[in-house]
Amino acid sequence: MTPLDRVPDRTPVPTGTGLTLEDTARPLAAGQTRPQITTTKAEFRAALAECVGQAVQDGLEAPTVGLVPTMGALHGGHAALARQARAENDIVVASVFVNPLQFGDPSDLEHYPRTLEADADLLGAEGCDLVFAPSVEEMYPGYPDGPIIRVCSGRMGAVLEGASRPGHFDGVCTVVVKLWGLALPVDAPAPARLRSYFGQKDAQQLAILRRTAQDLDLPVEIRPVALVRSPEGLALSSRNTRLDSAGLDAALVLSRALQSLRDAAEAERPLDVKAARRIIEAEPLASLDYLEVVDHDTLEPLTADQLTAPLQREALALVAATVQPVRLIDNMILPAAAA
Amino acid sequence: MTPLDRVPDRTPVPTGTGLTLEDTARPLAAGQTRPQITTTKAEFRAALAECVGQAVQDGLEAPTVGLVPTMGALHGGHAALARQARAENDIVVASVFVNPLQFGDPSDLEHYPRTLEADADLLGAEGCDLVFAPSVEEMYPGYPDGPIIRVCSGRMGAVLEGASRPGHFDGVCTVVVKLWGLALPVDAPAPARLRSYFGQKDAQQLAILRRTAQDLDLPVEIRPVALVRSPEGLALSSRNTRLDSAGLDAALVLSRALQSLRDAAEAERPLDVKAARRIIEAEPLASLDYLEVVDHDTLEPLTADQLTAPLQREALALVAATVQPVRLIDNMILPAAAA
Repeated sequence: MTPLDRVPDRTPVPTGTGLTLEDTARPLAAGQTRPQITTTKAEFRAALAECVGQAVQDGLEAPTVGLVPTMGALHGGHAALARQARAENDIVVASVFVNPLQFGDPSDLEHYPRTLEADADLLGAEGCDLVFAPSVEEMYPGYPDGPIIRVCSGRMGAVLEGASRPGHFDGVCTVVVKLWGLALPVDAPAPARLRSYFGQKDAQQLAILRRTAQDLDLPVEIRPVALVRSPEGLALSSRNTRLDSAGLDAALVLSRALQSLRDAAEAERPLDVKAARRIIEAEPLASLDYLEVVDHDTLEPLTADQLTAPLQREALALVAATVQPVRLIDNMILPAAAA
Repeated sequence: MTPLDRVPDRTPVPTGTGLTLEDTARPLAAGQTRPQITTTKAEFRAALAECVGQAVQDGLEAPTVGLVPTMGALHGGHAALARQARAENDIVVASVFVNPLQFGDPSDLEHYPRTLEADADLLGAEGCDLVFAPSVEEMYPGYPDGPIIRVCSGRMGAVLEGASRPGHFDGVCTVVVKLWGLALPVDAPAPARLRSYFGQKDAQQLAILRRTAQDLDLPVEIRPVALVRSPEGLALSSRNTRLDSAGLDAALVLSRALQSLRDAAEAERPLDVKAARRIIEAEPLASLDYLEVVDHDTLEPLTADQLTAPLQREALALVAATVQPVRLIDNMILPAAAA
């Protein structure tokens, strides 16, 4: 699910700044068609089985299916997910579903933009074959009395972004496990392997979903899609359009703080998390929410000992801060020290 | 998982009573072989893919796989599951795994019998093709720190048997979803459909797992296996061997109470739950834990109005009582009134 349930900004995008995700989305070109849109689970499964059948007729023995779960209101970040899925798979499917389980605030859910026509165009431009856009009742029969059985993200969902959004990551895990179950082409005329695409920008979500597939032994491969940065280092986000030029400058402290940790990890020097936090705290327009260095597989904070020794395992540095009242997140992977 | 985590009785079984499940298990006959035993996920997946490949070579287009999840210490109840799976599928696999997540009491877990050799013989006698018997570390790497992501049974797991066993049904759901993920033959040379077998005796477990597949859209068909009764009506259980003849007589009140509700449902008369409870309360050797009539899909108690009108939907009557200090459970499905 990209983005999370933050209501995306719909302001017209200033072009040429190199700072927005909208810039990286392509329009539907002449000759390109919108993907088939399915709205029921049965339709989606049947259409996917047909895609697999077609791929087999075209000579493939075990086609791969790339799934891009989204909540719609698509921008260039989603386009990058679809593009990578297209490059790596025989069949590309996307879901467009505003998942009520991952919203805390009913008003956020209500005001979340629904732009299925434009979304289908964007997905078509990236070569997506099939879209699944179910209603809430189709996805969760009897909602809000169901689903009764859900996936729980445990302590990984209670920290960082999850600390201020109880239940959010449980909702993400539940809907994504359902989408995987629907996209596993068991009715198809041939076996097919499933890959699911998530952006590295939402690093906690990616880590939790990777762990979901692993902890529940689900037959799906998680494929991360790299975060895109401006030349100055700012992580691209549709929220950047809400910053003025002073805000855009100030926002650079997030990546600068993360980079200080990455430089240290690469040089096998101790990680000074407090110094990294001070980089952000020194910027008057920025207000730090958290900056943490955590284990890549569990999201548990590294201990003082682990921060001072060369990194034994890959770690993750995550930051959230508010700049000119826009809440921004960013992260970098910190490589393990050479053995 | 059959049985649940109650430590089964290992006392020698009195034969010929018609009251124990052991009587219904067959020994491994001459010419029958033990199924292949796998202990790692990779081995199991590869062996299952090989079974599917063999079935395809034998001319099947889309073979079916019947999965029988167990915790070992197998008796005739499990044999019935394996037998039905064998009758209905091209390939039969069973898991033997004492799942620590579903035990509340560490001592129960420690003393749970491990009898893999005998289990494999019993499964072989029923024609099972493949057994998956992993270690705890194989199933839950890093246990008890993992699994972090789990399946939660919600309000269905908090009532009836779950009321006195917090976390039990979450543990059952988590391990069964994992087993489904492992038994979905995605690496196989042909598509294959998965069916999973559970006994109606553990009605709450069956209802929760049916709901798990449904709520999480997992591509598995749940197949219930009927409860077996003595001619007098007592539900077969390995625990019955712990009752003397007075206890066996007294235990009949459970099925008698349930039958009173079933008779009423079939005659489209009001369901008198209190009268059914009194049948058990009138038996000096029995002590009632609960007797409830609940919705078949949600396990929510029927309202007073629903109990007095003809049943609109199939319902479930469940009872638990202690007889001569053996805790017994039983249940009956109450049919909906004719439309």
